[in-house]
Amino acid sequence: MPARSGRFITLEGIDGAGKTTAASYLAERLGEEGVEVVATREPGGTPLAESIRSLLKGTEGEGPTTDTETLLMFAARAQHLEQVIRPALQAGQWVLCDRFTDATYAYQGGGRGLSAERIRVLEHWVHGGFQPDRTLLFELSPREGLRRRAGEGGQSDRFEEEGTDFLRRVQATYRQRAEAEPERFQPIDAGGSWSEVAGALDAWLARELAQWRAGA
Amino acid sequence: MPARSGRFITLEGIDGAGKTTAASYLAERLGEEGVEVVATREPGGTPLAESIRSLLKGTEGEGPTTDTETLLMFAARAQHLEQVIRPALQAGQWVLCDRFTDATYAYQGGGRGLSAERIRVLEHWVHGGFQPDRTLLFELSPREGLRRRAGEGGQSDRFEEEGTDFLRRVQATYRQRAEAEPERFQPIDAGGSWSEVAGALDAWLARELAQWRAGA
Repeated sequence: MPARSGRFITLEGIDGAGKTTAASYLAERLGEEGVEVVATREPGGTPLAESIRSLLKGTEGEGPTTDTETLLMFAARAQHLEQVIRPALQAGQWVLCDRFTDATYAYQGGGRGLSAERIRVLEHWVHGGFQPDRTLLFELSPREGLRRRAGEGGQSDRFEEEGTDFLRRVQATYRQRAEAEPERFQPIDAGGSWSEVAGALDAWLARELAQWRAGA
Repeated sequence: MPARSGRFITLEGIDGAGKTTAASYLAERLGEEGVEVVATREPGGTPLAESIRSLLKGTEGEGPTTDTETLLMFAARAQHLEQVIRPALQAGQWVLCDRFTDATYAYQGGGRGLSAERIRVLEHWVHGGFQPDRTLLFELSPREGLRRRAGEGGQSDRFEEEGTDFLRRVQATYRQRAEAEPERFQPIDAGGSWSEVAGALDAWLARELAQWRAGA
């Protein structure tokens, strides 16, 4: 048994804010520090959960209702928690997860209008009081997020096809949640250059590692 | 607008008990009586819900945890209710549905051991107080059910691969639910000949139609 359990770090924010690049960077930095890392994402992270992701992201055929969408998100999450996240933490590894339940509050709640009370019922059903140790919130204007994604080209999914009003509601929900839990959330200004973002991540990671090594 | 809403009839029981044949027979009989019928099934009944069914029934790759399985069942159900069941009932049609939430209590609850309290939370989340008007419970010994299915040949799915102990627990849960709600449940002895089963269905249907036409 490892001396202590790992850290569960989630990365949140709208598409285009650089979460994927940041996760790779953090995984590499943690590796250099001798910390074992699992980098994963939601919805997804296991073969079955990735199949659920395909159902959620697909733009062909019948779209899910908001209730169905939310239940599918939590179905994928239940699988991911049991098969990947909890075992890794118990083995002392750090888990870097691109989106988790905060995203459900932001997208299905803020974006689509499902009440926070209804989301809370499913959150409690699936993971009780279990929460990320830390959440990095990548903040970017919806307009800039859309601009960056358009620059990438490629096919957009059902969520990316939503407009700036939807993304503004998503972002406002993220911000409210960050303000309500300042201990857990670390806002990252994603509008600057990559070296600025990397600098912010380095500073944050140094503090986190020191705390973790001290057994906090 | 039709004078009155349709009837929501569910068919429950273990595989091999003849639900599919009974549903076809009832649909035909109702058609002869001039009643519009939608025959459907769970999990499934819409293109998206049928995709969820494929994830649930698949025997290849990673199986879902019981929590994931149950959330997927209710995700499919939410879609089916919104897209098929409620609109049909509002249009005055009768809905004959092969399995519904009683099956979740029987299979995920009785069969796999998920608590009724946890199932009740999701039931309430997805369909509040909405319940089938009537539920036909096809009763057959697990041994006979397995024998009949073996006779049919073909590939078995994840649920059919469970043994007689599992099916006994499923059936015991169905029976408890039928005893708790005798007004809603109509037990059908599925162990007899088809003409005996059809006779029981005819008698039941005559009573139901008379009640419905009287506006009860």
